[in-house]
Parts: sequence; structure tokens; C-alpha cells
Amino acid sequence: ASWATARAPLSLPVLPAPRYHAMSSQQLLVPPPAVLRQPLAVPDRLLLGPGPSNVPPRILAAGGRQLIGHLHKEMFQIMDEIKLGIQYAFQTQNPLTLAISGPGHCAMEAALLNAVEAGEVVLMAVNGIWGERATDISKRLGMADVHQLVKLPGEYFVLKEIEEVSAACIRARTLGLDCSSQALARTCLLLVDSVASLGGAPILMDQQGIDILYSGSQKVLNAPPGSAPISFSERARKKIFSRRTKPPSFFLDMGWLANYWGCDDKPRMYHHTAPINSFFSLREGLAILAEQGLENSWKLHKENSLYLCAGLQQLGLQLFVKEQEVRLPTITTFVLPEGYDWKEVTAFIMNKHAIEISGGLGPSAGKVLRIGLMGYNSTKFNVDRVLHALKDALQHCHKNKL
Amino acid sequence: ASWATARAPLSLPVLPAPRYHAMSSQQLLVPPPAVLRQPLAVPDRLLLGPGPSNVPPRILAAGGRQLIGHLHKEMFQIMDEIKLGIQYAFQTQNPLTLAISGPGHCAMEAALLNAVEAGEVVLMAVNGIWGERATDISKRLGMADVHQLVKLPGEYFVLKEIEEVSAACIRARTLGLDCSSQALARTCLLLVDSVASLGGAPILMDQQGIDILYSGSQKVLNAPPGSAPISFSERARKKIFSRRTKPPSFFLDMGWLANYWGCDDKPRMYHHTAPINSFFSLREGLAILAEQGLENSWKLHKENSLYLCAGLQQLGLQLFVKEQEVRLPTITTFVLPEGYDWKEVTAFIMNKHAIEISGGLGPSAGKVLRIGLMGYNSTKFNVDRVLHALKDALQHCHKNKL
Repeated sequence: ASWATARAPLSLPVLPAPRYHAMSSQQLLVPPPAVLRQPLAVPDRLLLGPGPSNVPPRILAAGGRQLIGHLHKEMFQIMDEIKLGIQYAFQTQNPLTLAISGPGHCAMEAALLNAVEAGEVVLMAVNGIWGERATDISKRLGMADVHQLVKLPGEYFVLKEIEEVSAACIRARTLGLDCSSQALARTCLLLVDSVASLGGAPILMDQQGIDILYSGSQKVLNAPPGSAPISFSERARKKIFSRRTKPPSFFLDMGWLANYWGCDDKPRMYHHTAPINSFFSLREGLAILAEQGLENSWKLHKENSLYLCAGLQQLGLQLFVKEQEVRLPTITTFVLPEGYDWKEVTAFIMNKHAIEISGGLGPSAGKVLRIGLMGYNSTKFNVDRVLHALKDALQHCHKNKL
Repeated sequence: ASWATARAPLSLPVLPAPRYHAMSSQQLLVPPPAVLRQPLAVPDRLLLGPGPSNVPPRILAAGGRQLIGHLHKEMFQIMDEIKLGIQYAFQTQNPLTLAISGPGHCAMEAALLNAVEAGEVVLMAVNGIWGERATDISKRLGMADVHQLVKLPGEYFVLKEIEEVSAACIRARTLGLDCSSQALARTCLLLVDSVASLGGAPILMDQQGIDILYSGSQKVLNAPPGSAPISFSERARKKIFSRRTKPPSFFLDMGWLANYWGCDDKPRMYHHTAPINSFFSLREGLAILAEQGLENSWKLHKENSLYLCAGLQQLGLQLFVKEQEVRLPTITTFVLPEGYDWKEVTAFIMNKHAIEISGGLGPSAGKVLRIGLMGYNSTKFNVDRVLHALKDALQHCHKNKL
């Protein structure tokens, strides 16, 4: 931007008077906090909320290894292994496959800010907080007309609905242009969020024609939060690499990340300091999934989820998603029965049984409870534990104490 | 954005034909990668580059602890302790003090995208890669006229220069408006990057009138990379919280982060899944610094850096920053002598001595070598080790082998 270009009305905010000055003394005015003299306090918990899950010893040990540098060849080897692990977990052969150096939320932003540019149309399928968040992010990025296809929480979308509405969105923008279905199809990318489902429910990125897929490390993969697998189809890669403008983030710029992850044919360059031991943990989470096999993992999650659903129904509880076939095998949502406060129920189970279960988020807040059975935590023994705790809570937390 | 609003010329990218379809089978086409059957391979190294540093056992143990939830009250307690630790390390009483869930680069973006809006002026003091990066980020965010005050790598800025040039930048934009120094002072925020200096060189945020200060976890604090302390003065907080537009990122929106970190007076809400065990490690890094005391830490880094500089000069090497008083006590940069290839020297020291030292970045690439002595790694013993390795490299790597 040159000095002569005034792109917006002049705006000089009036702030309180500053006190800039070079340091005149080194006298410390803020003393060391006494609380940091206490040891780090981390209670033992069974984490059966919607994530993070408990981390198995093998992954904890990996994350507790001494560091190497983010540009050492052994680190590139580990990143290559992560890439192969993600390609397996996603069932894709996309070369542009890597892990974002942040939680799943960061991957959502990375997907949107790389794939979409100003003036383009985004259609968001919304049936809860995540569609709302993705809509918010798209609007903040100031780069898209954002349309929503809205359903109630607990309902679901099929691909045909999304195709039809996206065609209508494009027609409304293109007016007289060629709107044959072939032309429409050539303009759309399909983005799927699999943060809570990866490894627990069948996702076959290439076979399903998904263009952008991302997930998180702290669900079925059982690594701590802080890294997020993501992959882009050839169509998505071409669109990203032919952008007219740079993405509005350097940290999440897929051109730089692709190079750092060895997804292009250039020498790898420094981009940012990767969360090295988060990548150690993610590598082990992916290795465990590869050893177990995706089909076995899907089967395990399905079985334990059915076992949990049966137990909940035996307690007289109503499942939030009506059709059994479309329920997520990783997180089971059920209706909070009348006469209970969700905070009291979850606090009782946490305090008396050292188990985390969770309330709803966004539009389902206050109406539902959620139990996660993910990876290492998806066992019949854990189902028995949480059902026992829940029964106890239902007996003790009713407003007219039973 | 409504359907009627066309904000940009119509652009329908033509992409390769898609293959969207519902899953017809669950046959896996991508097999589990064989390399993930091998154990995770992490060699032992002494990390004397510009970061990450080696992580002491106490911090590794903290990062290897089992998780709790990101919304558990014990996690909020740990985050409160981190906040107090950052306030001590930064020497600030700013309530808006927290850790970003990403590396220092992410904190740089967080600082810029929250503090600046469209039409505002940014002046960047550039004497190497970081000023260039911050300039790039500001331009990508599309929200500022970005001016540079440029010096050669190895040179430094004093506050008076920055004040004078920023006043000139504002005058050029304000034209006939009130340009008294009082009015100018009320419009500027001072942002300082202390990623490599925090804990190693005196920084007193409040006493120096710094408005935004950020750092990284993996330098003097000796935690793994993946979290980044940041703090905002009352002036910066007021400016951020009276923005006309939302920041162009949800993940880094300081309004949401302030709430999640208990920096406002509202109940804490879910924002994103924090990197829980990265925060455990950061808490321990800050606790160690608080136990040691800032003055002792500054003294230690100064002494060992002087010891290293003397050793380098005894080897006939020339320090890159001429004036001793302005050299960073954490990272020492010296000129690569003629007849040597930096890659050969660093590879020799890595392969034969298992020690990392680093080349330059950006404009200093190929011209200098860098040795980091940070926190746990800042010892006379390590200086002796690296000088011994360097002497060996200088004997073996000269192009006309000595």
C-alpha cells in the first residue's frame, strides 16, 4: 500500500496517554507468584466427554520424549510418517495431506481461508454449533457470500440436498450464465469436518469424493489436543494454488505448509516452529490406528456405542438422534430428562465418580447430555462405569429428590 | 451477506470434474503404512540452535501427564497460574494476559489481527526476517497501510527513531488534522516481539510502556513449542474491544480468548480445545523461571553469552553484532568465515557431535551461524561442548581442507 492510497476513511482512535520510555531501572515491580511454588495439580479423570479422551501410556510416553529440532531430517521423517498415517486414516492418496499446528478449530479456519476467496459463495450445512462457527469464520474472513442450509440439531443432511441447494445458490449468483449441472459441478468443493468421527465411523475420502477433510488429534486418535490432520483433493489443491490473492494468514498458508510438509517438489523451508512433541504423539496415535486397522476400529466403536445406547434406554433415557443408523458411534447424545439440571448431573458424576460427561453446546445447550467413547476409552468396562455413575446421578440430582 | 449483494466480480473457478457420491462400499483402498510399524525414532541431541531448546525432565514430566478437560476447574486454575507466571515474566499487571494455543508465529498474527483494523497505519521496524514476516502478515490481513523502517541485519533500533518515523507516517495520512505530539501519541500502540529474548534479557513491559508483548514457550522457558504468552496494555485492550469489525479469525479473537482465560468478568465459555498438556509444560517453565528469579536468569544468560563470545573470538571468529551491549544474551550470531559452507559446518557438528547450531534466516542466510544458550541449556559446560565441536568443524570443513 503506497502512502497516497487511502483505502478507508481516516480513523485515528483516541487512546489513554501512553508511557513509552527506555528502561531507566531494572527494579522488578511484579513479584514471583506464590502459587507457582506449589506442584502442578492434575487429578485423575475418566474423560468420557466429547473430547479430549484419555491418552494411552504409549502416546503419553511419545509426547514426553526429549525434543529434536523442527527442521531436523528425523523430524521430516516423522512428519512423512504422520502424512502416511493420515492418508490411511482418511483413505486418501492426496499428496496435499498434513497436520495443522493447532487444534481442530484451527484446521477449520485453515480449510476456509485457503479454499475460498472474495466474491465466492459458501454454502454451510448447519445443524448445530459447528455449522454456526464455520459460518461465523467465513463472514469474518470477509471473503464469501455465506448461505446456510439449516436443520434442527439431531437431524442430518444427505448429499443430494446439499447438491441441490448449492446449485440454487450458484444460479442466484450467476444469473444468465451456463448453469448446466456439469458447469455447476465444476465450480464446487465439498468440505467435511470429521473431528469427532474419524476412526470411529467409516470415512473414505477418495471414494466419497470429499475435497477437503480435517479432523483433530484428541478424539479417536487419543493424542493430546494441539494438532489437526487435514487433506486436500487435487481439485481443492488446484483451486488453492491458483488463488488471485494470498490467504489472509501466514501461519495457515497452505502454500508454505505444503512445502514444510514435503508436499511439493521444492526443498523444505522454515515456516514456523512446529509443535514437535504434539507431532510425536499424533504419530503414535496414527500408528495405533494403523495397527488396529480402520475396520476393527469402526466395529469396536459401533459395538460399544450400541451397548451404551441399550444401557441408556434401560435407564429410561431417550436418545437425541432418532434413527439408529445415523447416530455417531463416538459420541452419544441423549435427552436430559425433566426435573434435572445438566450442570448438577455432570458435576455430581465428576465429583463423586471422577468421570467427565458433557452437556450440549450452542442450540442443544441445557437440553442434552453427551457421552464420548473414543479410541482407548471405547470399552464395555467404561460403558458400565458411566452407566453406573449416571444411574447414581439420576437418583441423587432430581430437583424433587427421589 | 444477502443473496442480492454482489460484493465482487463474479468468479466461478473451473476445476477438474468432481466425483462426489455416497459411499457404496467400505473397501479400503489405502493400506496401513508399513513404516508406522517401526517404533518412533527420536535421536538425542543438544539443541543449541535458536530454539527449541532442550526440555528439562521436570517439564517433560509435566507434558507427559494424563489429560484433564479443557473446561475443568482444575484446568482454569492452571491457566490462572500461567497468567500469573506470564505477568511475572513480562513484569506487567495487565489483566489481559494469556497464552495463545499455538507457536510464537501464531501470537504474532494474533497481535496484529486483533490490534489493527482496515485503514489504519502500521509501521514495522525491520532488521531481518521477523520484521519482513510481520509486514507480510499485515498485508495479507488487508487491513493496514504498512510502512517499513529498515535497517541492516545486525543493526538495532532505538525508541526515538521509531517515534519520529511513526509520527511522520501519521502526518502523511492525517494532512490537516491536529498533529501535535500529544495527539500523535494518543493514536499509537507499541508492539514488541520477545520470542527469543524473554527471560534472557531485561524486559519490563509496564515500566517500558509496551502495549503488546508476546513470546514463545520453547526458548528460555524450555517448554515444547505450541503455546505463546501474550499481554495487552489497557490502551491496547481498549482499542481491541472498541473495534468496528470482528477480527478476521475466530480462533485468535481476543474477545473470546479473554473470556476463556478469565480476563473479563463473564463466566468462562467454550472457545476451542486448548493444547492441555502444552499448557502443563508452559506452567512448569514459568514456575522454574519464577523460582530462579528474573534477575538471576538475566545474569546467567549474560554471563554464559559473554563466555561464549570470548571463546568464539579466541577461535578467530567475528561476532555479527558489533556493539557488545546490544547483543542478545540468548542467541549469539557470528560471521561464517570465508572458505566454509554453513550447511557443511552445521551438518558436521550435528553428525559428529550431536549438537545443533544454526545458520541465518532471510537476509542473513548463508552469511552467519547462530548458537542459542537458553534456559536449561545456558551453561558453561554447553559452551565448552559447542566450542570444542566448532573448532573441530573449522578444522575439517574448510573447502581447501586444512
